[in-house]
Amino acid sequence: MTLTAAPETTSAYDLGPARALACRECGHRIPLAAEFACPRCFGPLEVAYEFPEITRAAIEAGPKSIWRYKDLLPVPSTVGQIANTEPGLTRLIEADNLAKALGVRKLWVKDDTGNPTHSFKDRVVAVALAAARELGFSVLCCPSTGNLANAVAAAAARAGWDSVVLIPSSLEQPKIITTAVYGGTLLAVDGNYDDVNRLATELAAEHEDWAFVNVNVRPYYAEGSKTLGYEVAEQLGWRLPEQIVVPVASGSQLTKVDKGFTELGNLGLVEPTRYTMFGAQATGCSPVASAFEAGHDVIQPQKPDTIARSLAIGNPADGPYVLDSVRRTGGQVGHVSDDEVVDGIRLLARTEGVFAETAGGVTVATAKKLLEAGRLDPDAETVLLITGDGLKTLDAVSGQVGPTATVPASSAAVRDALTSRG
Amino acid sequence: MTLTAAPETTSAYDLGPARALACRECGHRIPLAAEFACPRCFGPLEVAYEFPEITRAAIEAGPKSIWRYKDLLPVPSTVGQIANTEPGLTRLIEADNLAKALGVRKLWVKDDTGNPTHSFKDRVVAVALAAARELGFSVLCCPSTGNLANAVAAAAARAGWDSVVLIPSSLEQPKIITTAVYGGTLLAVDGNYDDVNRLATELAAEHEDWAFVNVNVRPYYAEGSKTLGYEVAEQLGWRLPEQIVVPVASGSQLTKVDKGFTELGNLGLVEPTRYTMFGAQATGCSPVASAFEAGHDVIQPQKPDTIARSLAIGNPADGPYVLDSVRRTGGQVGHVSDDEVVDGIRLLARTEGVFAETAGGVTVATAKKLLEAGRLDPDAETVLLITGDGLKTLDAVSGQVGPTATVPASSAAVRDALTSRG
Repeated sequence: MTLTAAPETTSAYDLGPARALACRECGHRIPLAAEFACPRCFGPLEVAYEFPEITRAAIEAGPKSIWRYKDLLPVPSTVGQIANTEPGLTRLIEADNLAKALGVRKLWVKDDTGNPTHSFKDRVVAVALAAARELGFSVLCCPSTGNLANAVAAAAARAGWDSVVLIPSSLEQPKIITTAVYGGTLLAVDGNYDDVNRLATELAAEHEDWAFVNVNVRPYYAEGSKTLGYEVAEQLGWRLPEQIVVPVASGSQLTKVDKGFTELGNLGLVEPTRYTMFGAQATGCSPVASAFEAGHDVIQPQKPDTIARSLAIGNPADGPYVLDSVRRTGGQVGHVSDDEVVDGIRLLARTEGVFAETAGGVTVATAKKLLEAGRLDPDAETVLLITGDGLKTLDAVSGQVGPTATVPASSAAVRDALTSRG
Repeated sequence: MTLTAAPETTSAYDLGPARALACRECGHRIPLAAEFACPRCFGPLEVAYEFPEITRAAIEAGPKSIWRYKDLLPVPSTVGQIANTEPGLTRLIEADNLAKALGVRKLWVKDDTGNPTHSFKDRVVAVALAAARELGFSVLCCPSTGNLANAVAAAAARAGWDSVVLIPSSLEQPKIITTAVYGGTLLAVDGNYDDVNRLATELAAEHEDWAFVNVNVRPYYAEGSKTLGYEVAEQLGWRLPEQIVVPVASGSQLTKVDKGFTELGNLGLVEPTRYTMFGAQATGCSPVASAFEAGHDVIQPQKPDTIARSLAIGNPADGPYVLDSVRRTGGQVGHVSDDEVVDGIRLLARTEGVFAETAGGVTVATAKKLLEAGRLDPDAETVLLITGDGLKTLDAVSGQVGPTATVPASSAAVRDALTSRG
């Protein structure tokens, strides 16, 4: 998957080790540009690199953010010196309590809620912004219903860029506030998310200075997810985990973590040991899990109906590549009900003190289910990716948790309340 | 203020460099224990140390959390090896946009929203838990209305401890959820925060295995705030800022940041350059600012009435020490209205992409006001401490921000909407 051949063209842009865009389907290469579809076959384009010599020591001496991996990303070498949100290098915690609860020998949780706007989207947006600047854009844009909107508006504010964020006008008030507070242009669009997405593609074609992070600069944006893989490996002491469970929305994150692991092995930064990729979806939007189970290569689109809204992409662009990755490494794609999602959120919170959004509940619950089905190996070292924050999806658990008891302000009453609970 | 004299007593506990508890008023020293008031004069007790030889290199090679400073904290040397939330080492960002907006030459924002439960409370609770374990406790407790409750419940979950969190029963539902999700004992107490606080003191006396972080182990807990000062200095390249603005609730944080700066100078880890401490309060709860303005040494308690609830302590325990610190360094304590708090939140968000809770709005708005009054030096290098997250106080800005426009799903409509805005 890692393309390191010499470039056909020299580039007008300084995007670090990036050398070209290559079609994932037909392999055709074009010069670095703001393109996302192959001019020959319309397949998705991906960044191709020519990596320099890179050492662990150089990375470890780098910034305490994703820019420690800048020599592995499609960004200018000066990226760290320009105002940005400095995402990444979030905690990887040894999750012994959760391991015990799940019956796994050794487990880690990658807690990406520590990012500037508390989801992994800060990573991909930071890479998109850095590439977009080099490609000549000056406005940062996206269609979104949540995490991505927060990340784009915050990153643009910090960079001193204008932003244009498109949301469905029916979006809940808290999600509107958490984007609007950053002060860019926030457009509420009458229509559903599909309408908003279509509008974004139209606007990207009409405004030459508008970079829609997940449309016209998507190949660069997507590479930001590799940093999750790099960090996991570095934080494990420069080695790959045996198993990793990744939530699947568009599917991009899973394929990029896989790509990141492979690159580290190819570059000699880790031993290229065997690892298995597992995907996690909510049953209410499980097109990739369904295709996996049916043994299909093609994804049948679904109409999402799940509380895991940040994963609710019914027609995931990278679904087929998730299937490739999971099958190649011997993994699976599992799915869980909304009730299981809530149980997953609560289990993670009470065992490890990490409060995840619904996507995190999907990951934990899917891991549990795959273990029970004997598909995840309980004896293999396992990592769970927790990519967003429970503070953004309070509704998911609001009916399930509350005070243990309500008591008068006396110590005797407290004693009684605790005794009566056993 | 830094007490480094040899101990009178040897300790039964391994609390790293901590050697005794010393009274801040009369200087009387007692052995390390779960005490918070001087047996002679009832003054507050503070941890006294005998520091080892410490180098910058050793700190830099340490964990990417507050435990890189463990040799400066009252915690066992093994602290990093026991499951904990691993708080700290949050971003210090160069805030050039905000600097320009405020008219300051050079400004940094310490963004403590990156902590595990998104406030600085994770720091103090982690230190309290580590000390409490060594002191023989097994249940982590607090009275709280917000950030502290989240931090205690999460830290206890991660450590595998029981927790008991006391809240007023009138607390808003979102704040209940964000604590209850961690699964400890959450007691809703019929009464106001003062009633809850009184109950906590009573319970601490009755339950010998209950560590109330801000009551019976408060001297250890409070030391956790020193890490904010250490990190600022390290992240500036091992030097002290010329000015720092710190929000004031109990006042502990400001005095501990001051203590941290002084210690670094004494230990030769930074040049002991001159710095000025500034305190920030909301006008609706500004007992320390009022005492400062009136030239008093004694704090007149106030009944809080402000949206900045995390700062709403009407009778702040460390108020007199804040006055000492601010006067000694040539600083001030300012205060701002609730409208200014909201403006401060919005200004920080749109200039730097950092969404702070109301306490952060207080800090930014107070800095602005002190600059306008000529009390903060616009030519001096300045740091603002942002200690909590806007996601927890959405109500503060919900009436102020929203979509720029609502439009039909067509690019022509978007063009019209943007044009009409100019």
